[in-house]
Amino acid sequence: MGSLHADVLESSPSCALNPLDPEEFRKQGHMVIDFLADYYRDIEKYPVRSQVEPGYLRKRIPETAPYNPEPMETIMQDIQNDIVPGITHWQSPNYFAYFPSSGSTAGFLGEMLSTGFNVVGFNWMSSPAATELETIVMDWLGKMLKLPNSFLFSGNGGGVLQGTTCEAILCTLTAARDRMLNKIGRENIGRLVVYGSDQTHCALQKAAQIAGIFPCNFRAVQTSKKTAFGLSPENLQDAINKDLDAGLLPLFLCATVGTTSSTAVDLVGPLCEVAKQYGIWVHIDAAYAGSACICPEFRHYIDGVENADSFSLNAHKWFFTTLDCCCLWVKDPSALVKALSTNPEYLRNKATESKQVVDYKDWQIALSRRFRSMKLWLVIRTYGVANLRNFLRSHVKMAKHFEGLVAKDKRFEIVVPRTFAMICFRLLPASGDDSSNEAANELNKKLLEGINAAGRIYMTHAVVGGIYMIRFAVGATLTEDRHVNLAWQVVQEHADALLGSTVAISPID
Amino acid sequence: MGSLHADVLESSPSCALNPLDPEEFRKQGHMVIDFLADYYRDIEKYPVRSQVEPGYLRKRIPETAPYNPEPMETIMQDIQNDIVPGITHWQSPNYFAYFPSSGSTAGFLGEMLSTGFNVVGFNWMSSPAATELETIVMDWLGKMLKLPNSFLFSGNGGGVLQGTTCEAILCTLTAARDRMLNKIGRENIGRLVVYGSDQTHCALQKAAQIAGIFPCNFRAVQTSKKTAFGLSPENLQDAINKDLDAGLLPLFLCATVGTTSSTAVDLVGPLCEVAKQYGIWVHIDAAYAGSACICPEFRHYIDGVENADSFSLNAHKWFFTTLDCCCLWVKDPSALVKALSTNPEYLRNKATESKQVVDYKDWQIALSRRFRSMKLWLVIRTYGVANLRNFLRSHVKMAKHFEGLVAKDKRFEIVVPRTFAMICFRLLPASGDDSSNEAANELNKKLLEGINAAGRIYMTHAVVGGIYMIRFAVGATLTEDRHVNLAWQVVQEHADALLGSTVAISPID
Repeated sequence: MGSLHADVLESSPSCALNPLDPEEFRKQGHMVIDFLADYYRDIEKYPVRSQVEPGYLRKRIPETAPYNPEPMETIMQDIQNDIVPGITHWQSPNYFAYFPSSGSTAGFLGEMLSTGFNVVGFNWMSSPAATELETIVMDWLGKMLKLPNSFLFSGNGGGVLQGTTCEAILCTLTAARDRMLNKIGRENIGRLVVYGSDQTHCALQKAAQIAGIFPCNFRAVQTSKKTAFGLSPENLQDAINKDLDAGLLPLFLCATVGTTSSTAVDLVGPLCEVAKQYGIWVHIDAAYAGSACICPEFRHYIDGVENADSFSLNAHKWFFTTLDCCCLWVKDPSALVKALSTNPEYLRNKATESKQVVDYKDWQIALSRRFRSMKLWLVIRTYGVANLRNFLRSHVKMAKHFEGLVAKDKRFEIVVPRTFAMICFRLLPASGDDSSNEAANELNKKLLEGINAAGRIYMTHAVVGGIYMIRFAVGATLTEDRHVNLAWQVVQEHADALLGSTVAISPID
Repeated sequence: MGSLHADVLESSPSCALNPLDPEEFRKQGHMVIDFLADYYRDIEKYPVRSQVEPGYLRKRIPETAPYNPEPMETIMQDIQNDIVPGITHWQSPNYFAYFPSSGSTAGFLGEMLSTGFNVVGFNWMSSPAATELETIVMDWLGKMLKLPNSFLFSGNGGGVLQGTTCEAILCTLTAARDRMLNKIGRENIGRLVVYGSDQTHCALQKAAQIAGIFPCNFRAVQTSKKTAFGLSPENLQDAINKDLDAGLLPLFLCATVGTTSSTAVDLVGPLCEVAKQYGIWVHIDAAYAGSACICPEFRHYIDGVENADSFSLNAHKWFFTTLDCCCLWVKDPSALVKALSTNPEYLRNKATESKQVVDYKDWQIALSRRFRSMKLWLVIRTYGVANLRNFLRSHVKMAKHFEGLVAKDKRFEIVVPRTFAMICFRLLPASGDDSSNEAANELNKKLLEGINAAGRIYMTHAVVGGIYMIRFAVGATLTEDRHVNLAWQVVQEHADALLGSTVAISPID
């Protein structure tokens, strides 16, 4: 490998090929497809959570860029030897951590096409298909979710693909902020209050920070076991009253359908009722659980959404569409456009001036945007509504099965009731041991670290109401019943070792 | 194609295959690689700028999602028939609009690998390779640009891959804002002033809007032909003085190396000298021209960067890395982290607590992030520093050649001097015609619209100093000399037609 010291030479390089030569593209593209197909085929042989130590890669890679080209074969070898060991295998069937990011062949192909066309779709003009397909697919998915017409383009609302929920919340919060400040004056920014619960994703706090909401005006309203860690409308009302008494202005509420820690559901309907009285912008963050709402049996979790202002879900979480793909619908796109638009001369064009087109640059933070709707379109068409529902249901069924296994072993406890495809459980200290909550928390920390270090499965934790619990999230696309059974066996083996118990491992159902 | 009305049936779907089945993935992956290789091979047969009318796609696509799966072959046929006509072919060798987004085989393969692994790299723990490769590659590229060590990890600074420049500016502006407000109190947000020039990309204005900077405190300092539309340090000083007199606080300056309209260069060194006196955070936006600075002969355009606080370039513009890939370096990562970090319990882990790792979620707006460094790594290794320089130089050479062609035809004028690989030119009204600037602007609008509508090449426009000019930006990866010659021939033919001139078309060099 050369180095920058070769600068002075400025030798004529050996590879003068055009870097987008179609036949070279074809040859190397096939090579990488085979690499990835083999990777998926063999994925179970890797430890799920990477076992490397901080700094492992600096020891393996030169400090400066190569001066001369390197063959793709060498690079692929390095990926296998140096990169793969540092990867936590999110696509492994034994991955049950955080919320999985469910890839699929259709989603992958969509991303390939989007990358291949490589259009920069800031406005309609820059590639009409990118904008139009997005409006159509967002209406499709909105209808699959039975969102009210007011969120669809056909009802003067509309949907847009953002990268992540953080961006979706920042955009809607900025729109709400400016709608308010344009009425009452910029100098009142210090009076605006943002509400969520102590279970709301940190994306809300981050968005509020970036949008200049004063940190003292951010409310993480307390939840409790009584409401299964959902935000109580009464508690919201109390918080609002207190702020009004203090001369503050309630601005924005983020209600969550499927919280990160425990998949808790904030009651959308009653919360919107409270918010409506004060003109609060309500955003529904259904990043994880929104996808499940395409199944009639789960749709009731977003009942009341007709009174919200915006709604989002992450198709890259549980909708077979690789990162990143956050679907955001708003009732009043003009509020986004007023807050986020810029109209430089170099982007002026007839289509925009005709007002017949959507220019998505004004619906998001960035100007440039990828052709993300391609992968969502491919996922919906390739699997169809019927299969998509079945895939989601199969994950829920596997989670239910795991729940049954935990419930049968009296050494364990289900900490909060299961709602979707995630189980929150913990091991109880052995009788005779310190049975305080701290002791239980320490025990489960140890149990989880032991399991993850072994590498056969990967789970992560959360703490709600002071209880440290292990989260078992089913959602990786390759997961089958046998992986869930294996996972439970692994948990039991580690619990046995930890408790010094001689209890025989119950046979796998 | 089915529809949602089939809901009631809930029929058992025909495709029960796992959606990430390795052999299905392999088969369909090869199909799409061949589709894209053919697309690149045949790309010249398409009109460069899409010729469709607003709303074209709604007429071709059903209003609701299909209930049952559809075969990939059908979908690919629809892409060819319905999507391709709506695409503006950014990868066409005849694409000279905006700034091209230069794809490459290596960049594409990197994106495939990133999508295939589909890791959600919010922190080190979630996939160590994603974080570590990014730190290494950002140091590589920093060294290629001869950035001072203070911007590299080895010098306690560091680089991060953002999606776009808009995000890079918003993150650095938020960091600067909070560093200031934490000292002087949140209530002073209305006193903070942000500076750019009237040529600065609209990303700055948008970032200021989102970050809650008062619109009245945004300064687009006027530029003129005298400084080739670069921001003059004297004018900046004047604007600062005026703001100080009014009791305001200068916060942030965005200086541009290669403006969007005309690739003008703000003089980094002298501007930093002015800014330094007031503790202003200086961000260098080298979105377009930054890449060229890996060539020694262009490096001087960023001289003085050692006195800036942050520096960014878009690898997806002119560095063979598909959208999105904005490289941002900062001297003081802790300022970003303080403004953008959140530490929810569910993300706590030993590696973070050891403080030996970078958690990139705290360097950006979003929590989730793709494995973007993979494509940048592949681009640098596959081509090597030598070839990358040669690719850039070949674009500059082609632009120079076009410049020569324009200069030889007395009917045309080069409006501003060429700096990199873009020519700004215009047609002059024929003698005897109205030769006012308005008439010239109208003439060139007409010329450009005629050329773009014909579809053989695509260029866009800008207005500087009241002059409407046509921008000819060389940068699409497939562009060769013959395309530049063809482009000039197209321009001449349209000019002939427009002027009703009988001047013989000069032979192509």
